[in-house]
Amino acid sequence: MKKICVVVASRANYGRVKYLMKAIQAHPDLELQLVVGASTLLERFGKAINIIKKDGFTPVRSIHYVIEGETLVTQAKSTGLGIVELSTAFDDLAPDMVVTVADRFETMATAIAATYLNIPLVHLQGGEVSGNIDDRVRHAITKLADIHFVASDDSLKRVIEMGEDPDCVFNHGCPAMDVLVNEDLAINNDLMKQYLGVGKPLDWSKPYVLMVQHPVTTSYGHGFEQVSETLDALKGIENMQKVIMWPNVDAGSDDVSKGIRHFRELNMQEPIYYYKNFSPEDYARVINNAVCCVGNSSSFIREGSFLGVPVVIVGDRQQGREHGSNAVFASYDAKDISAKLRRQIAHGRYIPDHRYGEGDAGIRIAQTLATSRFR
Amino acid sequence: MKKICVVVASRANYGRVKYLMKAIQAHPDLELQLVVGASTLLERFGKAINIIKKDGFTPVRSIHYVIEGETLVTQAKSTGLGIVELSTAFDDLAPDMVVTVADRFETMATAIAATYLNIPLVHLQGGEVSGNIDDRVRHAITKLADIHFVASDDSLKRVIEMGEDPDCVFNHGCPAMDVLVNEDLAINNDLMKQYLGVGKPLDWSKPYVLMVQHPVTTSYGHGFEQVSETLDALKGIENMQKVIMWPNVDAGSDDVSKGIRHFRELNMQEPIYYYKNFSPEDYARVINNAVCCVGNSSSFIREGSFLGVPVVIVGDRQQGREHGSNAVFASYDAKDISAKLRRQIAHGRYIPDHRYGEGDAGIRIAQTLATSRFR
Amino acid sequence: MKKICVVVASRANYGRVKYLMKAIQAHPDLELQLVVGASTLLERFGKAINIIKKDGFTPVRSIHYVIEGETLVTQAKSTGLGIVELSTAFDDLAPDMVVTVADRFETMATAIAATYLNIPLVHLQGGEVSGNIDDRVRHAITKLADIHFVASDDSLKRVIEMGEDPDCVFNHGCPAMDVLVNEDLAINNDLMKQYLGVGKPLDWSKPYVLMVQHPVTTSYGHGFEQVSETLDALKGIENMQKVIMWPNVDAGSDDVSKGIRHFRELNMQEPIYYYKNFSPEDYARVINNAVCCVGNSSSFIREGSFLGVPVVIVGDRQQGREHGSNAVFASYDAKDISAKLRRQIAHGRYIPDHRYGEGDAGIRIAQTLATSRFR
Amino acid sequence: MKKICVVVASRANYGRVKYLMKAIQAHPDLELQLVVGASTLLERFGKAINIIKKDGFTPVRSIHYVIEGETLVTQAKSTGLGIVELSTAFDDLAPDMVVTVADRFETMATAIAATYLNIPLVHLQGGEVSGNIDDRVRHAITKLADIHFVASDDSLKRVIEMGEDPDCVFNHGCPAMDVLVNEDLAINNDLMKQYLGVGKPLDWSKPYVLMVQHPVTTSYGHGFEQVSETLDALKGIENMQKVIMWPNVDAGSDDVSKGIRHFRELNMQEPIYYYKNFSPEDYARVINNAVCCVGNSSSFIREGSFLGVPVVIVGDRQQGREHGSNAVFASYDAKDISAKLRRQIAHGRYIPDHRYGEGDAGIRIAQTLATSRFR
Repeated sequence: MKKICVVVASRANYGRVKYLMKAIQAHPDLELQLVVGASTLLERFGKAINIIKKDGFTPVRSIHYVIEGETLVTQAKSTGLGIVELSTAFDDLAPDMVVTVADRFETMATAIAATYLNIPLVHLQGGEVSGNIDDRVRHAITKLADIHFVASDDSLKRVIEMGEDPDCVFNHGCPAMDVLVNEDLAINNDLMKQYLGVGKPLDWSKPYVLMVQHPVTTSYGHGFEQVSETLDALKGIENMQKVIMWPNVDAGSDDVSKGIRHFRELNMQEPIYYYKNFSPEDYARVINNAVCCVGNSSSFIREGSFLGVPVVIVGDRQQGREHGSNAVFASYDAKDISAKLRRQIAHGRYIPDHRYGEGDAGIRIAQTLATSRFR
Repeated sequence: MKKICVVVASRANYGRVKYLMKAIQAHPDLELQLVVGASTLLERFGKAINIIKKDGFTPVRSIHYVIEGETLVTQAKSTGLGIVELSTAFDDLAPDMVVTVADRFETMATAIAATYLNIPLVHLQGGEVSGNIDDRVRHAITKLADIHFVASDDSLKRVIEMGEDPDCVFNHGCPAMDVLVNEDLAINNDLMKQYLGVGKPLDWSKPYVLMVQHPVTTSYGHGFEQVSETLDALKGIENMQKVIMWPNVDAGSDDVSKGIRHFRELNMQEPIYYYKNFSPEDYARVINNAVCCVGNSSSFIREGSFLGVPVVIVGDRQQGREHGSNAVFASYDAKDISAKLRRQIAHGRYIPDHRYGEGDAGIRIAQTLATSRFR
Repeated sequence: MKKICVVVASRANYGRVKYLMKAIQAHPDLELQLVVGASTLLERFGKAINIIKKDGFTPVRSIHYVIEGETLVTQAKSTGLGIVELSTAFDDLAPDMVVTVADRFETMATAIAATYLNIPLVHLQGGEVSGNIDDRVRHAITKLADIHFVASDDSLKRVIEMGEDPDCVFNHGCPAMDVLVNEDLAINNDLMKQYLGVGKPLDWSKPYVLMVQHPVTTSYGHGFEQVSETLDALKGIENMQKVIMWPNVDAGSDDVSKGIRHFRELNMQEPIYYYKNFSPEDYARVINNAVCCVGNSSSFIREGSFLGVPVVIVGDRQQGREHGSNAVFASYDAKDISAKLRRQIAHGRYIPDHRYGEGDAGIRIAQTLATSRFR
Repeated sequence: MKKICVVVASRANYGRVKYLMKAIQAHPDLELQLVVGASTLLERFGKAINIIKKDGFTPVRSIHYVIEGETLVTQAKSTGLGIVELSTAFDDLAPDMVVTVADRFETMATAIAATYLNIPLVHLQGGEVSGNIDDRVRHAITKLADIHFVASDDSLKRVIEMGEDPDCVFNHGCPAMDVLVNEDLAINNDLMKQYLGVGKPLDWSKPYVLMVQHPVTTSYGHGFEQVSETLDALKGIENMQKVIMWPNVDAGSDDVSKGIRHFRELNMQEPIYYYKNFSPEDYARVINNAVCCVGNSSSFIREGSFLGVPVVIVGDRQQGREHGSNAVFASYDAKDISAKLRRQIAHGRYIPDHRYGEGDAGIRIAQTLATSRFR
């Protein structure tokens, strides 16, 4: 019985590993040790922990390690505090492997703690390129990790080129796709009424545009202006409902949130609703039923390509990321964004593109973890 | 005036950057911000801070971040605490660049803090291979760093292969060599009497063997046995003085120290002396005048090759490290070590090998930092 | 020249020590070392640091140590992190004394760090009683402190009864009063337009009620209901402008804020304005010109009694606090609060009561620090 | 079933609460949650955790939080880190009460974490006076605690005078006495051979003097000289075996240890043995069978009076502590210590004095915890 410790430290993390966690729980030779921490515990970021528990997962540890401020320095310090506390947890839980996802500061904290504790580190979504500081972090984690479950062929190639042992690199696809094939992605008002946000209530059976825009660490301090361009463009799309999500806990989130709050104060009468969090399934539904998505969430590229939803990617946060034809790129400029939004809305749905997997990643990864020997 | 923040967090660190720090201080366009921390402040590890100050450097911050225990978990936690506190310091000091050296946990703490604070990170001694967990950490830091000053041509090649921009990778040699060409490396009793250790006083004008053996994180828990083999071999070399240094603060140091203390209790009458620390110059003298060195310090490979001192490398801590002909490798086995020690002593001095630089790295690195633009 | 380190860690802290800091700066034998930290650096709490700098103070250290969550556990952890970092700062700055104010978790962090570093600890506002967990913390700090500057005669008596040396206990009054005698407390729209909040803009020349209500740690989890009662009562006061301040960063703030946000969503059309922070002078003006204050801020009792402003104290956060006749107490019940609000508004101004000092505390405390020897 | 969380964070802690822990385990209405941390996990301090486990206790959490250095600043930082991590543990374990003992920095960490988490705090050994910084810490913890189990009548009086509710203060005696009535305190070589130390092996059936001397925080930096006086005095007692214990992990331990190591190097041939740790029972045996004890351990005053063992208390660490006639006090002066040592040896055994309890404290405290309601 291998003990697999999964650290879920943000709402995005959860969406990406939920199906892997289910597969680990279901596998006879694996035992799931779930550690939740950081913004999953925070009210301001939608308390993903509540959704995690409702989904039937019971964390063995819940650890607060977000140092408030959402600046560069607090992001660095949160990483440090995360390492301090995750080390204590790993030492106690003695897992056989630790699983970490993608490229956030919480991911790095998990990676460092596991590495120094000499526990084999499993990394999901390595080898991708997105053109900013996340690249450094992602690639550094690749160099720390023992086992790599990448999400595309390009990534596989890149991880191996960085010098990793090809026998330890697997492309089973991205487990974030799993939800897309396993759930009914229709949406309706009943389903969505459980989510309280602020703004004008939405009719989910009518068209809407989804906006998710996170701060970009390397252009820290410009979040307010950056998001304001997107919001301006969005506002210009008339006779359309809008769904806006608050950003992740990252250096610069405060600026982006301030931009959104400022916009909201001036546009109270508009049909716009503001949410903090959805369950992974409902988030998938919200993407799937959007007329178009705009912002810089990597889900627009991953889930978006799988579903064929038209998306407008703003700025450089996803610059180098491998993407399907559903994605067009705009600069931080309301006019540019607006033009591309209109073009994408006019285009409508794209042909699905499964470059990020077939939706069976969770089960395949669990099986590989159970049957292979690493170290 | 570029502010260059150098973090010195162990005695080994200091030996490697002292000449770079001198060059930064001397350069008209550079300002040195020295942060000292971790074991440089600790009595048990020889308080390198005293030597640093005597050498004329004034730290702008002194930060304790070693969590006691020398286990895997405390090593991880020290990394985390280091990040927390170095972030505060960097945020306050606002350097233009941060310099970090090699591959230790303190190095990682510096690298993470600088990266998340968006401060260009300068890494020394990247691209080397030594065959254990240090490799992961070293390569991960390479992926975080902006500017790489490697110490050999092989390393240069390796860093570029990992995907780093060739314009940001420089081989100016290892600054640890600088001390070897800038100082008179003769030794005498007068010079050395300032160092208090324990054991039988030595006559430095007579032959001696130097032993330095650190714990190996990936074989954590075996330090006692590992060092005992070396000590046994050492004891067997008759009519020879021995100099033994206590290990670094690393996971497993306690085991190695216990092995040494245990050996000492049983061999009080032997001509063996035990030291905690030397200044970089005096450490260079101690190596230079040794009949042979034994253990697993990377200085045996770097400084050793430059000086042509015969060395016996024990175990796998330096396994893959590029080395000159002065180094032979032994397993953790007293007989094997003993045989190779005798062979090396019989062989005597090797022809110097400058694969780790010509001894002008400090000045060349400072010049590159002053004149180049990164980011 | 005695170095006096003052740690300012919340907007409330600052209001209370500003005039002491000015007096220290002005005193020829004293040098001010200002350390700012915790919520003074946070956007969400009005970034008091900006006001502090505008007032001409230059911090020697700025330290983030609020762990996000505003729960009991994050409050505890913030205290711990504060100790870790303040210790590094004090060790570096080597002050002759450290000054800490009142009873918050940041105060405790300062007190513990100074105590263990063997630096004489100066405590302001000890000996008071307010009937909840703050009492424990306040009294514990009294037992750690070397020198006590209490704010009333009752407090003086109480501190001595707890066993403190009477020669080290001084009642020079509360330095929060100093602002009240040194500034023109008239208010006008021009002065106040610098503060951005949300809500309907106010006419400061017309009557308004001020509400400030913080969470109460010992009834953690009830903040939403508690503040809602006050807000309901407040809403019922017709033809009256209202000024509402967001709560401090404390365990439970999130609940109180949620209550206020919820109320705001439902009452967008009401003449209510919501602020995060004022400078100490402007806060004094806002109190001074209020028709009545309602909530549980200790400023209502201190500044309120000095100015004779009618106040309604809600709940048990100030239960046992020594107070003037300007204060009446209500339970967490909209009806009770409403009745008392109306009664206080009808009563109008009270005769000033100087039980918390004459407004010269800053200068007197500075003089005592300069001329006395402790330890 | 009340969950009682006991935090054991040093070897001294353990000796004092072992019998209380046994009583909690045995009580049908109580459940023991044992958290071990700090120096109990450290090799250098004898790894009390091994003894704790051998005694049949299973910790639910093991947490490293000693920051290395044994200076004032690291002591402060260890307190902070302890709070950070104990908060996470308490939040997870949700005990009904937390038990903390005496006055060390680890005790303070436990007290602060429990207080801010709103968990009733049980304090053992409050109200005592020992004449240094420990007094401040002890009394501050008294002000934080809900329930006080003092160890003498004087302490009971003092805690109530500090303003604590008399209904929450109990004198059931010191649980450190329990071991003295429940165990056979005879000693022999067989029993003691399990303890490895350094030095000349002892014959426990022959007379010996026991020395235990800890650093004194308020005279930080003088530990070397202070202990050297005691060691000099000790050396002068001829024809006598000596047992010396290494000091606790406290600011200044390094100095004291250095004094002892220095002494040892010069006195290798003397019949002196050096120990790190004993089980509580064996420590009781070592005291009980000593001809005399010298140093500043509070056990000399507590256990010493109960057993009637003559002791010489050196310096001011126990200055104000209530004591029996078995204790005489000496200054930091070899001559004074020597004279008093000789006088005490000549005097021999004193009549037992049960001022610190009858040896049934554990059971009585457990019963009070089980049957009373606090808060």
